Amino acid sequence: MKGLWLENNQLQLRTDIPMPEPPPGEALVRVLHAGICNTDLELLRGYYPYTGILGHEFVGIVEQGPECLVNQRVVGEINAVCGHCRFCRHGQPSHCENRTVLGIVNRNGAFGEYLCLPIENLHLVPDNVPTEVATFTEPIAAALEIQQQVPLRPNDRVLVVGDGKLGQLVAQTLALTGCELLAVGRHRNKLANLEARGIKIGLADAVKDGYFDISVECTGNPEGFAIARRALRPRGTLVLKSTYAGNLSLDASSLVVDEITLIGSRCGPFPPALQLLATGQVDVQPLIHATYPLIEGLAAFKHAQSQGVLKILLEMSK
Amino acid sequence: MKGLWLENNQLQLRTDIPMPEPPPGEALVRVLHAGICNTDLELLRGYYPYTGILGHEFVGIVEQGPECLVNQRVVGEINAVCGHCRFCRHGQPSHCENRTVLGIVNRNGAFGEYLCLPIENLHLVPDNVPTEVATFTEPIAAALEIQQQVPLRPNDRVLVVGDGKLGQLVAQTLALTGCELLAVGRHRNKLANLEARGIKIGLADAVKDGYFDISVECTGNPEGFAIARRALRPRGTLVLKSTYAGNLSLDASSLVVDEITLIGSRCGPFPPALQLLATGQVDVQPLIHATYPLIEGLAAFKHAQSQGVLKILLEMSK
Ligand SMILES: [Zn+2]
Ligand SMILES: [Zn+2]
Ligand SMILES: [Zn+2]
Ligand SMILES: [Zn+2]
Repeated sequence: MKGLWLENNQLQLRTDIPMPEPPPGEALVRVLHAGICNTDLELLRGYYPYTGILGHEFVGIVEQGPECLVNQRVVGEINAVCGHCRFCRHGQPSHCENRTVLGIVNRNGAFGEYLCLPIENLHLVPDNVPTEVATFTEPIAAALEIQQQVPLRPNDRVLVVGDGKLGQLVAQTLALTGCELLAVGRHRNKLANLEARGIKIGLADAVKDGYFDISVECTGNPEGFAIARRALRPRGTLVLKSTYAGNLSLDASSLVVDEITLIGSRCGPFPPALQLLATGQVDVQPLIHATYPLIEGLAAFKHAQSQGVLKILLEMSK
Repeated sequence: MKGLWLENNQLQLRTDIPMPEPPPGEALVRVLHAGICNTDLELLRGYYPYTGILGHEFVGIVEQGPECLVNQRVVGEINAVCGHCRFCRHGQPSHCENRTVLGIVNRNGAFGEYLCLPIENLHLVPDNVPTEVATFTEPIAAALEIQQQVPLRPNDRVLVVGDGKLGQLVAQTLALTGCELLAVGRHRNKLANLEARGIKIGLADAVKDGYFDISVECTGNPEGFAIARRALRPRGTLVLKSTYAGNLSLDASSLVVDEITLIGSRCGPFPPALQLLATGQVDVQPLIHATYPLIEGLAAFKHAQSQGVLKILLEMSK
């Protein structure tokens, strides 16, 4: 089958990848659409070692699996877990010690014609959610993880730093909590998406220092981190939502003096993410900048890497 | 009066410091004993700009103030606050925006014959607590701040990194919670103090990676931070209890992937600290390595800076 294969930091379109055969407990899914995420771009740059088919944001149709799922559209949680380690046993399967992760750790991903995932990872896509839209389930779930980790009160002053695709989804989901929200970035055209939804926006350089209870860093660069840090009041919480290239250098003494909490945040819950899409409470259409057929996958990646571009989708059947 | 004066990173014994006159709402305290803390050593190295009398751990006798306090032994909270900023109004006075801090920020400290502090900062020392012992009230309060910030459950696996004076007080106070505690350091003789109190100890290099729910970094150096970080399970909490010289470089992506919480921790509550001393639940005697008269203050600092030394006290009346 065809797929975008990463090996030695080189992405190539291969047509000779063997069809996957689902092991017991897994389903075979024919991929319809998949989204390119910043993590994919980082894997390409070699930040983590990975060899195989890239991709972890997808919608597909189950071809082999339980009867109730066959021929249904599904999205899939990306961590395939062992079920018996201490994290699996304590309700934290996304941290399973023996996990594989779709298109990220030891498991072929979604930028191919077919993929396999454990049956329990799959969620049916509601009929009224278009396939392109449902590819955003995984990043919206990741955005919702913030609210699982940090209790938000209606009067909390919350800052989102970064107007990229993740920052926009984070801002949209946080806006639903009724907190006092400000989203900042460096691109007026991207921020306009949020403004159109009634979210207060600003430029990243003009953030009021020491004002916010919670800041969410969605840029993955040290400048964004510095803005998110400075914006916090003492005893505030900084949520790290992005991965970083290399090490981050920070003033640890000021974290101690101001008793700042810094919290890393990764994968989140799929069911509420699907519900937000089904009810139209999160709008992802303005984030989709282009859709490419799989065979033009390398061009799609080039597009995704260019300045100012939000989500690029791949369509597998073309 | 006499005092140890810091100016341009130079500490000097001055005998010409004017007697302080307490402003309204403050008491005049004659200092009996004071303790040299790592923060004092860092101020000396110029990590923060400060000019004035050093010192913030002390026991003294009130000479001017409310009648009920005059001639009584007291300890004092170090943050002198404004009472009307947003932090003061919201129950977080130690983060007051307009605060001065005894011997640290814009307020002459305890390494002099007299000091002034707001009356509400003072706490009576129970009769059965010796003066030398009561000088540990402030660092024990700082140790107790951890438990105010991080809820500890009896089965939690907790690691304390650092066998210096702060690490030892942190380990002793955490041991009282009944958690599964391990204290590690690099000095067998220092760790022996903790072992004598029934606390499980180990060498810093032999910590089991990914095992602990909570780790407390008390060394203030990057190696200690690295040990505290590696020791944590995913979703664990790293408490930063020490200030750091310069910036700390960390792998922020691993904090995101493992959803680690990092929390800075500073000043804590005095009343429970005094109670632990009064009831003998924390033993500070083995931490006192020497007591110097104020006029030998420079020698005391030299001693405090040498390898393997724990607490050095100053006695002001001599
Ligand atoms: Zn992603
Ligand atoms: Zn597992
Ligand atoms: Zn101190
Ligand atoms: Zn204040």
